Amino acid sequence: MNIVLLSGGSGKRLWPLSNEIRSKQFLKLLSDADGGYESMVQRVYRQIVQAGIDADIVVATSATQVESIRGQLPDDVDIVIEPERRNTFPAIVLAASYLLSVKRMEPEETVIVLPVDPYVDVAYFEAFKQMDARVQQGGADIVLMGIAPSYPSEKYGYIIPGADGTVKGFKEKPDEAAAKMLIEKGALWNAGVFAFRLKYLMDIAGKYLESMDFSDVVKHYPDLKKDSFDYEVVEKTEALAVVPYSGAWKDIGTWNTLTEEMKEQSIGDVIMGEECVNTHVVNELSIPVVVLGAQDLVVAAGQDGILVSDKHKSSYIKPYVENIDSRPMYEERRWGEYKVYDYSKYADGTKSLTKHVTVNAGCAQDYHVHRYKDEVITVANGRGELVIDGCLMKLSRGDTISIRRGQKHAIRAFEDLQLISVQISEDNTEGDTEILDWSWSALQG
Amino acid sequence: MNIVLLSGGSGKRLWPLSNEIRSKQFLKLLSDADGGYESMVQRVYRQIVQAGIDADIVVATSATQVESIRGQLPDDVDIVIEPERRNTFPAIVLAASYLLSVKRMEPEETVIVLPVDPYVDVAYFEAFKQMDARVQQGGADIVLMGIAPSYPSEKYGYIIPGADGTVKGFKEKPDEAAAKMLIEKGALWNAGVFAFRLKYLMDIAGKYLESMDFSDVVKHYPDLKKDSFDYEVVEKTEALAVVPYSGAWKDIGTWNTLTEEMKEQSIGDVIMGEECVNTHVVNELSIPVVVLGAQDLVVAAGQDGILVSDKHKSSYIKPYVENIDSRPMYEERRWGEYKVYDYSKYADGTKSLTKHVTVNAGCAQDYHVHRYKDEVITVANGRGELVIDGCLMKLSRGDTISIRRGQKHAIRAFEDLQLISVQISEDNTEGDTEILDWSWSALQG
Repeated sequence: MNIVLLSGGSGKRLWPLSNEIRSKQFLKLLSDADGGYESMVQRVYRQIVQAGIDADIVVATSATQVESIRGQLPDDVDIVIEPERRNTFPAIVLAASYLLSVKRMEPEETVIVLPVDPYVDVAYFEAFKQMDARVQQGGADIVLMGIAPSYPSEKYGYIIPGADGTVKGFKEKPDEAAAKMLIEKGALWNAGVFAFRLKYLMDIAGKYLESMDFSDVVKHYPDLKKDSFDYEVVEKTEALAVVPYSGAWKDIGTWNTLTEEMKEQSIGDVIMGEECVNTHVVNELSIPVVVLGAQDLVVAAGQDGILVSDKHKSSYIKPYVENIDSRPMYEERRWGEYKVYDYSKYADGTKSLTKHVTVNAGCAQDYHVHRYKDEVITVANGRGELVIDGCLMKLSRGDTISIRRGQKHAIRAFEDLQLISVQISEDNTEGDTEILDWSWSALQG
Repeated sequence: MNIVLLSGGSGKRLWPLSNEIRSKQFLKLLSDADGGYESMVQRVYRQIVQAGIDADIVVATSATQVESIRGQLPDDVDIVIEPERRNTFPAIVLAASYLLSVKRMEPEETVIVLPVDPYVDVAYFEAFKQMDARVQQGGADIVLMGIAPSYPSEKYGYIIPGADGTVKGFKEKPDEAAAKMLIEKGALWNAGVFAFRLKYLMDIAGKYLESMDFSDVVKHYPDLKKDSFDYEVVEKTEALAVVPYSGAWKDIGTWNTLTEEMKEQSIGDVIMGEECVNTHVVNELSIPVVVLGAQDLVVAAGQDGILVSDKHKSSYIKPYVENIDSRPMYEERRWGEYKVYDYSKYADGTKSLTKHVTVNAGCAQDYHVHRYKDEVITVANGRGELVIDGCLMKLSRGDTISIRRGQKHAIRAFEDLQLISVQISEDNTEGDTEILDWSWSALQG
């Protein structure tokens, strides 16, 4: 079995913790099995393993999310980068072509596609085995997962079941009365989970592309119709089946719904007065948050900003934060993370950027060069080494390195390295990082 | 006329903006005449000038407040530093001895003493002229200011007036019924404002000290009784008079009372949803604060932390914040200011401290040395110079200086200097700054 996780766009609904780089699925706010915290994507991965599913996992996402995924999931999870955001049909075709031509999967194998951020029980993933069996047994080209409805929702799509687990039809967003009738007839919510044989999708994609070779699909990606998988594939498929799932299924994409799933009232350095009622506080900053006499509030403090909101009003955050124009102040990287302490623009247009950079023990940055910015790095703690224009030097506490624009460099850590970096540039700094073709393994060569 | 401003202790009632270094009277939260913001101490100074009072002004305070006062008040305001905190009687004697022996004031001159943070109208200071006249006309050794009560408060002291503006007696904290009766009889609140001839206080202080020379008073400060001026002087004086004042008089020492005087709903980078009711937000951080659907809330964000509180509950903040053990994250200095970005302690006991330091154009640090910490300074913007172990070097954007422990140094700015400083120490860093006897004027010599 192969699993394709669709890791969707960023969104600012969980501002200030989510930003263009860090989508909501990467926020570590859910309690994990060991008393710590895990993100939605880590929870899904853990539950797949827990359900005893033996599958190759591919995440289809955009380039901006690669570092976060690398930082949160094991290395054996593959990542397929969408050349551009086009909707779920092209993204799933891309992942399928990767499985076929790069991973050399058999065309008859089952692929199960799902969003990366459902908040569900392990049973949801256990149902994958039935979906796989149903695909392999034949007679259905697409097998859907159907969620047992908990109320007559007007915002979901309903799957109307036929005999023997087949699908008779669909009903999108019915009104409440219609939804009640559908539920009485055994209709299920469409969860956006699809199982099919690799081959089935490849045939459909053949309408748009000549070659299913991964590099060709990347090259001709714009030729794939910008449509949803539902619309382009599911609705045009006649032989459909559905496997029901009746456990928890939630979208925890707003502060209101997310805090319902938080086990504790607060995460981080938080002091709450006794009189606080139905209030949740998440603090990612290193300074304390004190909350007194709050009712139905969510307080979230992160490098990008601070939110104080009535819980219900928190769903309407979008217009208030979409015009906040700032660079992301926190980024998780494959090799560690960084926090921006200060980003200043001076009268003559020069900018300075002060960051706290952590390079995790055993990890290394790519060899890279900045064309427009000079950088001064001070080592606050840890041990590692720096390659600069091909020369190697050891780094330890108190060392300072001045890296001029045009100097190629990279750092790796033997022990966790805490670095303070000050970058100064006279021009646009965004995107001023060119990754070079050199590897640390060259040093051992 | 001489004015002595008593600049009292710190207190954490306006946490996170007030801390051990920055007392509430230094917070710039009140609207000034030019559409900007001023602190309580700046407001008092401005009102003294506005009232047309021609007086020498001395601030009696502790050493921790000197830099804040120097940063906020003009240089012609004198500062007298209490060798230790002992209560108002010793502090006022100290200031009086300074006026007498350092400023060479006549013993017959009037001194008016007041707290540095009353929130009042200009008329309050205009009343000083009557108080001065009353002192000089003779017949009263102490002239008090009496505030016209606005309600039968149980928490203030009442002055019971006699004939011709004399004082018949006092009543401390009466119950409400008694307060009502006192007010009917014309009693006034005791505002803690005292006027007297220098000589009068010097005679009383003579009980404790042999010499009224300022340096002697400093030396024998512990011999002065640790008592309030009210108890030690006012209550023992028979010839008392009172001058009434009937304008605004408020203690704005809690978030609840302070926000009542804020002209705007928010200060700093704040986005408020339309549905916010009776909510005030003060943001001193460089990241935005978004507040949605809040009611009766105060939100304050500063380098030391973040407060979200119901307005009424905000008066009970003390127990929640008194155990927050952190170094002050913001300090105003005579020459500029600094913000702490990060303060980390590592496994082996080493500490690193990352600060953003601003040295204002034309200002200079004292020549100083750290015995236990190394420092790396990067110039993010501006121009200035550095003296290090007697050598002079120019500073401009992008420069990095490594200052090892034991190296004497100081920086001065030609244009506002923005510096990122990383200090690393293996031992206790608090108090590790020794000011040296050297002056920038030596360079010109």
